[in-house]
Amino acid sequence: LIHRFEATRKNTVYLCEGLEIEDMVVQPYAEVSPPKWHLAHTTWFLEELILNKNKNHYSFYNEKFRKLFNSYYKCLGEHWVQGTRGTLSRPTVNEILEYRRIIDELINDLAIKEKENSAFSQILELAINHEEQHQELMLMDIKRILAENPLHPVYQKTNQNKIISPLTSNQRCWINISEGIYEIGADESQFAFDNEGPRHKVYLENFSLSNNLVTNSEYLEFIEDHGYSQPKLWLSLGWDWVKKEKIISPLYWVSPNEKKAICEFTMQGLQPLKLSAPVSHISYFEADAFARWKGMRLPTEAEFEVCAVKNKGLTDVFKSQLWCWTKSHYSPYPRYKTFAGELQEYNGKFMCNQFVLKGGCMATPKGHYRNTYRNFYGPEQRWMYSGIALAKDEI
Amino acid sequence: LIHRFEATRKNTVYLCEGLEIEDMVVQPYAEVSPPKWHLAHTTWFLEELILNKNKNHYSFYNEKFRKLFNSYYKCLGEHWVQGTRGTLSRPTVNEILEYRRIIDELINDLAIKEKENSAFSQILELAINHEEQHQELMLMDIKRILAENPLHPVYQKTNQNKIISPLTSNQRCWINISEGIYEIGADESQFAFDNEGPRHKVYLENFSLSNNLVTNSEYLEFIEDHGYSQPKLWLSLGWDWVKKEKIISPLYWVSPNEKKAICEFTMQGLQPLKLSAPVSHISYFEADAFARWKGMRLPTEAEFEVCAVKNKGLTDVFKSQLWCWTKSHYSPYPRYKTFAGELQEYNGKFMCNQFVLKGGCMATPKGHYRNTYRNFYGPEQRWMYSGIALAKDEI
Amino acid sequence: LIHRFEATRKNTVYLCEGLEIEDMVVQPYAEVSPPKWHLAHTTWFLEELILNKNKNHYSFYNEKFRKLFNSYYKCLGEHWVQGTRGTLSRPTVNEILEYRRIIDELINDLAIKEKENSAFSQILELAINHEEQHQELMLMDIKRILAENPLHPVYQKTNQNKIISPLTSNQRCWINISEGIYEIGADESQFAFDNEGPRHKVYLENFSLSNNLVTNSEYLEFIEDHGYSQPKLWLSLGWDWVKKEKIISPLYWVSPNEKKAICEFTMQGLQPLKLSAPVSHISYFEADAFARWKGMRLPTEAEFEVCAVKNKGLTDVFKSQLWCWTKSHYSPYPRYKTFAGELQEYNGKFMCNQFVLKGGCMATPKGHYRNTYRNFYGPEQRWMYSGIALAKDEI
Amino acid sequence: LIHRFEATRKNTVYLCEGLEIEDMVVQPYAEVSPPKWHLAHTTWFLEELILNKNKNHYSFYNEKFRKLFNSYYKCLGEHWVQGTRGTLSRPTVNEILEYRRIIDELINDLAIKEKENSAFSQILELAINHEEQHQELMLMDIKRILAENPLHPVYQKTNQNKIISPLTSNQRCWINISEGIYEIGADESQFAFDNEGPRHKVYLENFSLSNNLVTNSEYLEFIEDHGYSQPKLWLSLGWDWVKKEKIISPLYWVSPNEKKAICEFTMQGLQPLKLSAPVSHISYFEADAFARWKGMRLPTEAEFEVCAVKNKGLTDVFKSQLWCWTKSHYSPYPRYKTFAGELQEYNGKFMCNQFVLKGGCMATPKGHYRNTYRNFYGPEQRWMYSGIALAKDEI
Repeated sequence: LIHRFEATRKNTVYLCEGLEIEDMVVQPYAEVSPPKWHLAHTTWFLEELILNKNKNHYSFYNEKFRKLFNSYYKCLGEHWVQGTRGTLSRPTVNEILEYRRIIDELINDLAIKEKENSAFSQILELAINHEEQHQELMLMDIKRILAENPLHPVYQKTNQNKIISPLTSNQRCWINISEGIYEIGADESQFAFDNEGPRHKVYLENFSLSNNLVTNSEYLEFIEDHGYSQPKLWLSLGWDWVKKEKIISPLYWVSPNEKKAICEFTMQGLQPLKLSAPVSHISYFEADAFARWKGMRLPTEAEFEVCAVKNKGLTDVFKSQLWCWTKSHYSPYPRYKTFAGELQEYNGKFMCNQFVLKGGCMATPKGHYRNTYRNFYGPEQRWMYSGIALAKDEI
Repeated sequence: LIHRFEATRKNTVYLCEGLEIEDMVVQPYAEVSPPKWHLAHTTWFLEELILNKNKNHYSFYNEKFRKLFNSYYKCLGEHWVQGTRGTLSRPTVNEILEYRRIIDELINDLAIKEKENSAFSQILELAINHEEQHQELMLMDIKRILAENPLHPVYQKTNQNKIISPLTSNQRCWINISEGIYEIGADESQFAFDNEGPRHKVYLENFSLSNNLVTNSEYLEFIEDHGYSQPKLWLSLGWDWVKKEKIISPLYWVSPNEKKAICEFTMQGLQPLKLSAPVSHISYFEADAFARWKGMRLPTEAEFEVCAVKNKGLTDVFKSQLWCWTKSHYSPYPRYKTFAGELQEYNGKFMCNQFVLKGGCMATPKGHYRNTYRNFYGPEQRWMYSGIALAKDEI
Repeated sequence: LIHRFEATRKNTVYLCEGLEIEDMVVQPYAEVSPPKWHLAHTTWFLEELILNKNKNHYSFYNEKFRKLFNSYYKCLGEHWVQGTRGTLSRPTVNEILEYRRIIDELINDLAIKEKENSAFSQILELAINHEEQHQELMLMDIKRILAENPLHPVYQKTNQNKIISPLTSNQRCWINISEGIYEIGADESQFAFDNEGPRHKVYLENFSLSNNLVTNSEYLEFIEDHGYSQPKLWLSLGWDWVKKEKIISPLYWVSPNEKKAICEFTMQGLQPLKLSAPVSHISYFEADAFARWKGMRLPTEAEFEVCAVKNKGLTDVFKSQLWCWTKSHYSPYPRYKTFAGELQEYNGKFMCNQFVLKGGCMATPKGHYRNTYRNFYGPEQRWMYSGIALAKDEI
Repeated sequence: LIHRFEATRKNTVYLCEGLEIEDMVVQPYAEVSPPKWHLAHTTWFLEELILNKNKNHYSFYNEKFRKLFNSYYKCLGEHWVQGTRGTLSRPTVNEILEYRRIIDELINDLAIKEKENSAFSQILELAINHEEQHQELMLMDIKRILAENPLHPVYQKTNQNKIISPLTSNQRCWINISEGIYEIGADESQFAFDNEGPRHKVYLENFSLSNNLVTNSEYLEFIEDHGYSQPKLWLSLGWDWVKKEKIISPLYWVSPNEKKAICEFTMQGLQPLKLSAPVSHISYFEADAFARWKGMRLPTEAEFEVCAVKNKGLTDVFKSQLWCWTKSHYSPYPRYKTFAGELQEYNGKFMCNQFVLKGGCMATPKGHYRNTYRNFYGPEQRWMYSGIALAKDEI
């Protein structure tokens, strides 16, 4: 576990390689955090929830960091307003790296001392998983920051997180599931976030799920059929969003009105749109409207999970690509219990007006995803690596 | 059916008796419509969806009304912006009453002619149900309009919609339901809105539902225990709402800080708070926080419906009182199909970021409510007649 | 004076003739007050500033009206928020008319008793002038309310406030004024608002002022020369306003893009635009941009006043037409003193970020205007009867 | 002139010494620009207005910089939205320094070539003055950026821009000026911005101006007398601002409620408030309210200029301290002409809803200020180095 901890911590810093200091400071939108904030917040998490709980009279590295790098834990005192993280020039990136080094050493020493302590192992495992979540968030935020810049900076020259090309539309196969009672959700046999449990029964009707993701080519047909101009395809809030934000294409498409020259902002800079690749960075509103236009629908989270369990190949395809929107609002499972103590704020309080995504994505750290995983975002959000898997009812 | 139509139309006007013309014009909040708008919109509905569809070359009463009194049907052309309904001084109340008289005559004539036509009967039944929904909305809006006024106008001298006093807290009984597969939702045997169907199976675990509503007295304990100041009791969006809107009590409580003198605005004007009455006009956020504080939870919509079906008395208690918040986001049932044509916009497009309420209320027209009924509002809304029914898990 | 008081009070009510009750309630914009509010506020003014100051133990008609109908006098306690006057359905129009009758009687009795009291006469004269200001405001607000309505209601069938047609552009004459010291502002010989004084010296350079107003025809040339699309013609804030509000014509022009069919909303309903009439309901931003496009400029308030004093005919032309924007920010005159007591809030506190208008308009009550009068509005406001008088520098 | 150009350009970079790269990127408020933006914008000014105008077929350093670093010149094409300058991580600080080096070389070469060309000298002198303005802006912005940070970073250890201690209140002397005609404004004998001219006559009445600035100690008396709670002291917009923004002290005061421990954020970090120093970083609203509380008033811009011309010592005192608010709205002088060409947007378009400040401040580059100088800001702005000079009427 200590080795996994060290590797995870190193990897977070590694993800910032190639960035300029300036890239690590800015916050173009309230929901996009500066990379240096992620470096500091994940360290704050270790201080507040491990060092301070497990060491007598623990003296914090800097008392002011307790407020600055608390994300949203009300029971841990005041926190800096999320949308103003980008106004903080200090601590500098180097000061934060030094902060990480010092805290990592303290955790290391403590972990050696507590290595037989299973409660300690549990919280350390949670901290690792927390840091992994922020690695994915950091890759989302970095993309959003670089995309905002008209100079189109490049994060990495080659696409190391290779997207497995999905099957083409003609070859789409449907995985059929029969009506009946199924069990979904996490039991206690291995680590899971609180929102994944408890394991419980659901009743599903006959349905099928596509074995691959909707492609840019298919999505372009939707656009060309005036998908963004037909209110009947959209949820009411979705239509308001399209009109207010003047949405005419997925988030990172550039020049969508000049069909031959559509480009997409990627981690390798601006690239011609690859028609066979899965359409990405779309909102729930868009995924839902596309599915309606196609005469199909999005799967529920239970349907997705049941399919994935039954079909190992499917999981592999999805998890190396894009998170799939489900039509399920993010609600607690029956008999859901939050984590204890301050960690009760980890997941439960967000179970309102968001939708569940399943499947993982190319930015998800290896080993982080499980079939029971429940990712969640508001229906208008698009900067995560999101895509569309279609479902349909069967007789 | 014609008689029911006539009675329903008359009743809508009857609900405005005792109001001044001025009361029928104003719109204190975007979601509160002027009563005269309801009188006109329900008539517009008849013109657009019955007369225009069933008469050749139908000539509209006033072409401008098509835009003015369209609520939100994008497929029927432009509509006046909801939040600016209160800027329209014309048509006057009297002009709208005349509009109603003319259209009612046309409907009457047509209904006689089409009395064997079942498609016509279906749309007429829908129109009656639509008008009934607006009767309840009108009573919500009238209360909100009068409450806004510091002169505390009285809508009616005596409480004709008598609230059945709920059992006191000590006497609360719990209705137990056992784990298993249940069927919920509307089949096609009688009229129902599209969102109530289709009937389908759900899996429920052991639980119990309180046979009465939470009282003002109980809710006051929550307030006195600093319920509005403890972030751990609240959803994240709920806490933001409490802070931003400075919420410290249910909507119509006046002087909540002076305990002995708490008053409540009612249709009979400002009245001392009745401690044994059910707490009313609360948001989902408040209902959810109260239940968490109580160590219990809100029921799901399926739980509520199953309980109501099994327990006729329960239904009677609830439906003459307050809509009960459920913890279920408002999502489509499996294999849900919207109404056809323009009516596809009736319900389906709102299935995003709202919560289901069950049970009916004292303002619901007699005969309008069914066990399969799904009412829905955003989690911060409070001007409907809403209350709390508690549920808990059982082993 | 008593007779003038009575006549003025009657005239305010007379201006509402022909309105429906509904017209007197609504408030389409924060700055537009419902006519019934004007009826009540001018009465409140009498209660607070005359009856309460001059009668022992005066008991107010309704204590709640003190807050409801206080416009903005902070020293007289809380006041209802301006933008929510249109949410008040009560008191009704009839209740307000009754309120007026009662207060008028009390004032009448008091005026008889105090007829030798010059301090009393002064405050009564101020109250009359205050009521006259609200008569003009009421005509502005009524026009804005009716214009907002797509049914285009008519206030009066014929144009009783006849606009004197301005000379055509070819015949425009220029009134020349020579460089030197001039005196402007009110001395104490007759009634004037505090902001008109004291009389003081200013130094003017050679200039000339046009003897008539810019016409719709001339303004149309500006539009056709893309006046609204050339940023170089506009103040920076003006350009932001044009872009944000999508301004393409004066306030009440309808269909400005179809040249032949331009209509204008008037008190006689929608009418074809009269090309020879003065352009009206324009903002300072538009007046300033038009003058710049024309290679001229707006006059200063001192220039306008000096011209008007020297040229009696000019005054007559202007005062029966439109208020003329001057290029003078509304600032205090040297040694300006506010009225005493609560009335210090009458004018002085608004001397920030507004511009002075001179000349009076057709809606200004007869006898109300003086050459020293200083009207003032924000540079983006347009619902007053405003127009353009051009000036230019002379050698 | 070339030497002055080089020295000025070097000095801009020198002002950033001691800053971290992170400090040069952030933008806590829309009106506060990142220091790296100033470094780039002043260079853009040289490219657009000197190189591109004076070199044949000039090829821009980077076409995208034309939009990125255009501040507000509409006639030079699109410009990046001011409030989102802080979202731009690229170009990096080092890339901008390189941009400066290249452009400086080109200017240098051109200046040698054009050294006999007086038109060229004029534009170069303007560019130097423009850069000097941005040096002062940069010091304002740096202070605002560092002050925002709860770690209270220090810009420089010692106070190099020493504030000359003002005389104490007891010793305040009044400079008297007699009624009469005076001339103010710039003639063409030396460099001045367009808004300073033309030189023209004004008529002043007897008045006197204090020979020093209001101190923190005096301002504290205003606060202790509940200055921020008395609406009668404030302009209407000022009172709205105080309430909405919850203003209770000058901008950089910390803990103003604990009188003994008041600190002030300075370029040397957080320091105990120096009572004898002039009160700084206050808005026009505060300056105006303070003067009213004191029974005095602010001077007009003409009064200030006349005093300064007549009293050389006064100028020296003021210009090494704080800009003094005048009660004059920022309006064009009689017969004002803007600069020609694109530079017409330099000053004239901002002559709306701002107030003039006179006197210079400790952050104003040496030699930059003149008695005719007209600085201007909105009445609510406070991040410039502003203070209060009192005036009073004399018989």
